[in-house]
Amino acid sequence: MAPASLTSRFKQSVTPDALRAYLAEFISTFFYVFAVVGSAMASRKLMSESATDPSSLLLVAIANAFALSSTVYMAANVSGGHVNPAVTFGMAVGGHISVSTALCYWISQMLASVMACLVLKVTTVSQDVPIYTIASEMTGFGASIVEGVLAFGLVYAVYAGGDPRNGPLKGIGPVVIGLMAGAMVLAAGPFSGGSINPALAFGSAVVAGRFKNQAVYWVGPLIGAAVAGLVYDNVVFPVQASVPGRVNSDGTIGV
Amino acid sequence: MAPASLTSRFKQSVTPDALRAYLAEFISTFFYVFAVVGSAMASRKLMSESATDPSSLLLVAIANAFALSSTVYMAANVSGGHVNPAVTFGMAVGGHISVSTALCYWISQMLASVMACLVLKVTTVSQDVPIYTIASEMTGFGASIVEGVLAFGLVYAVYAGGDPRNGPLKGIGPVVIGLMAGAMVLAAGPFSGGSINPALAFGSAVVAGRFKNQAVYWVGPLIGAAVAGLVYDNVVFPVQASVPGRVNSDGTIGV
Amino acid sequence: MAPASLTSRFKQSVTPDALRAYLAEFISTFFYVFAVVGSAMASRKLMSESATDPSSLLLVAIANAFALSSTVYMAANVSGGHVNPAVTFGMAVGGHISVSTALCYWISQMLASVMACLVLKVTTVSQDVPIYTIASEMTGFGASIVEGVLAFGLVYAVYAGGDPRNGPLKGIGPVVIGLMAGAMVLAAGPFSGGSINPALAFGSAVVAGRFKNQAVYWVGPLIGAAVAGLVYDNVVFPVQASVPGRVNSDGTIGV
Amino acid sequence: MAPASLTSRFKQSVTPDALRAYLAEFISTFFYVFAVVGSAMASRKLMSESATDPSSLLLVAIANAFALSSTVYMAANVSGGHVNPAVTFGMAVGGHISVSTALCYWISQMLASVMACLVLKVTTVSQDVPIYTIASEMTGFGASIVEGVLAFGLVYAVYAGGDPRNGPLKGIGPVVIGLMAGAMVLAAGPFSGGSINPALAFGSAVVAGRFKNQAVYWVGPLIGAAVAGLVYDNVVFPVQASVPGRVNSDGTIGV
Repeated sequence: MAPASLTSRFKQSVTPDALRAYLAEFISTFFYVFAVVGSAMASRKLMSESATDPSSLLLVAIANAFALSSTVYMAANVSGGHVNPAVTFGMAVGGHISVSTALCYWISQMLASVMACLVLKVTTVSQDVPIYTIASEMTGFGASIVEGVLAFGLVYAVYAGGDPRNGPLKGIGPVVIGLMAGAMVLAAGPFSGGSINPALAFGSAVVAGRFKNQAVYWVGPLIGAAVAGLVYDNVVFPVQASVPGRVNSDGTIGV
Repeated sequence: MAPASLTSRFKQSVTPDALRAYLAEFISTFFYVFAVVGSAMASRKLMSESATDPSSLLLVAIANAFALSSTVYMAANVSGGHVNPAVTFGMAVGGHISVSTALCYWISQMLASVMACLVLKVTTVSQDVPIYTIASEMTGFGASIVEGVLAFGLVYAVYAGGDPRNGPLKGIGPVVIGLMAGAMVLAAGPFSGGSINPALAFGSAVVAGRFKNQAVYWVGPLIGAAVAGLVYDNVVFPVQASVPGRVNSDGTIGV
Repeated sequence: MAPASLTSRFKQSVTPDALRAYLAEFISTFFYVFAVVGSAMASRKLMSESATDPSSLLLVAIANAFALSSTVYMAANVSGGHVNPAVTFGMAVGGHISVSTALCYWISQMLASVMACLVLKVTTVSQDVPIYTIASEMTGFGASIVEGVLAFGLVYAVYAGGDPRNGPLKGIGPVVIGLMAGAMVLAAGPFSGGSINPALAFGSAVVAGRFKNQAVYWVGPLIGAAVAGLVYDNVVFPVQASVPGRVNSDGTIGV
Repeated sequence: MAPASLTSRFKQSVTPDALRAYLAEFISTFFYVFAVVGSAMASRKLMSESATDPSSLLLVAIANAFALSSTVYMAANVSGGHVNPAVTFGMAVGGHISVSTALCYWISQMLASVMACLVLKVTTVSQDVPIYTIASEMTGFGASIVEGVLAFGLVYAVYAGGDPRNGPLKGIGPVVIGLMAGAMVLAAGPFSGGSINPALAFGSAVVAGRFKNQAVYWVGPLIGAAVAGLVYDNVVFPVQASVPGRVNSDGTIGV
């Protein structure tokens, strides 16, 4: 994207198209958070005691994967389908969207997340909204590293999923992004919490009124997302890179 | 769609193509309901007592997602693959199908749902057909709101999944719709029941002979579906909207 | 397909292409049966007692869905990816493959299924190969009806998944077929057994040496498959049918 | 690929494109191993005692399927998306990549696997990294055979998924490969361990410091992978093979 003056960038941020993009981000993030937080509440309601077991983690991870696939898809053509402040941050660092646009995206995502948690809390009456926490034996620093690693993987997948050089693979981008998120939650859920998404941790914390470990879900993911975008754009697949000869130019794999 | 006289609309509803569409809706809805209600019966049969646990919710939600993906796909080219009266309602409100056609769709979907539940009840002998119920602590109003939110998300996904402007993403539309339904069930199943589909709640209620809370599964979803269609068509992605510059015109995401 | 003399049909059945098709069916069916029967054995090994619970059904159903999606995909371009004698039967009844070819497919599928169960029995030493059984309270007739309904749905999905008129949806055909199978197993597993595939029931029965209820897994599925093929080709989507005006000609759904 | 002198092959292995390919393999393998080993640790942490149940196997298998689908996708256009030394071996045997390139791929994959296990061990503090083991009643030879069968299926799927003759099916190749891996793990997890991937078994063994049964996870998979590649390229679908008449030339199935 060619550099632009602050004014023009701001203008770009209030065009009808841009406003539609913010609304699309709001709707997609709302349903993503609704599904993830709601599934955590549902799983807790179904367990006799507060103890968790593999099936409750699986339930939340699959809700995460299914919801992210569909919500990214729903917003793809309007806003680019970030549904995650870390992704938006990575896109801004990579220069794919302007800073002012990124800020508006963040606001939409935060509002959507808080709204989704509020709807869940109000409608389910007696239920509390669960917040993201880290395993007792882990340090906040270790959890940040894990969340950063997860965010690196997710944002890397977002870059790959949206790469026009992917040929026929482009069509399944949103599903692949969702699968990546689900796999990351399955791997780290019981340790760092597996938020990967600052809006997710923020919304539930606001509604629950507890901000313990919030930093973990912001510092790690934002750094991981920024690094992922830079690595993908500049090292792994720079614009001027030709596709290696042993890979078909139409993006098919392996053979 | 240009306005048409009642006669022409009625004529349009009895053409061979239209009749094939009703049959396609019947078949797809039959298998969708068969899978969802059947999986609920299967899960109850496998649990020692009537208590549920996360894996039983997961089982029903995955049956829902898998069945909706495939049944929407099966009917996509013939009837548009609604498989849900709320979706049909949303399409009619948005002017994508005529009112008379929508009514015929509803009839097909209702009949299919009742038939599917009957087949399950008769063949499984000793089993009762489970009906959708809301959590004891929830109000019918709260449950309606939840079901309406779920329906908004599902119909919004249906609109996005069928949007010709989605370029390469169009091919996975039916799968994305199914994933959205599965995520919504995981989030709301133990609270509002997670029907999202009036035909589903209606068929099981008819065969079980109990209509408690039926209104919850009609009012909420129909309103949510109508709003989703109007929002998508008129606000988020109006026909005259251009694709934002930072999104590739071929519908790829993110980058 | 134009009628052909028995000789020419036989000739058609021993061409190199045809022999490759039989091998492709063998390989795909082998891995499909290996995954389904293997997952049932794995789940039984992990349960303390012989009792089943929702997660064991979910495990087998997901193995079924994942394996069918990938094995149909693996054979799609060589043999058409039937991986199921009922599908082959439905294709033969519909005139899409010759009777002699169908017989050769059946032989490949049976051999593959027996081989897969043998490998599992020999390598896992102490384990028995589980056979498909129907719920104690069900009649063989009721179970046949259920298996027939499941097969109708699966074969209908196979026809839809391979329909060249599906436009952009064609690319996900094999995955949709797998999802349909998974949903059907979740719905009927604890009742009729949820084989849907005569080769599956046959192979495990041969290796286990018990043929109780075999008829259930042959009569129902074959009838259901034949009816599904005829309904799809002649009623729902006949060759001369035009795509209804309200559905985009490129096969997109809903809108 | 035409034969080339050792020098030119070596040159080919240190071009910028090749170096990017090694990095892509490193990143994809890192996240694949992170998800699979991490989910095994997560499941063990959630189980009260060391006993496993079907849901813990399901959790690991789904993490495997989701992670492989997305990591293969992420590397597809840069390195071909092997993410598995056995796949690389099969590609080298089939002549799709040079031996020197294959060796560099192996090094990247091994390093990535060890790194992923180290990150997990360090950040989760009190947890041990689980290693792959075979069921007590099984022989190492039997386990090797099982792992070899699994690898045959996976590599066969990789070949099919990357076959340019797959027409519209090409777009979902990575997802199908992931689903195949998940199905194989569900079938063999409790018996042979279900690694299918030497790097997976190697990395966890290095970090855990126990190399029991390592041979099982190398001998079987490498042989299975090599055979799969040769069978696919030379028998099932040789380059000069025409697509059977009854299969649409655009790769659609069945009908």
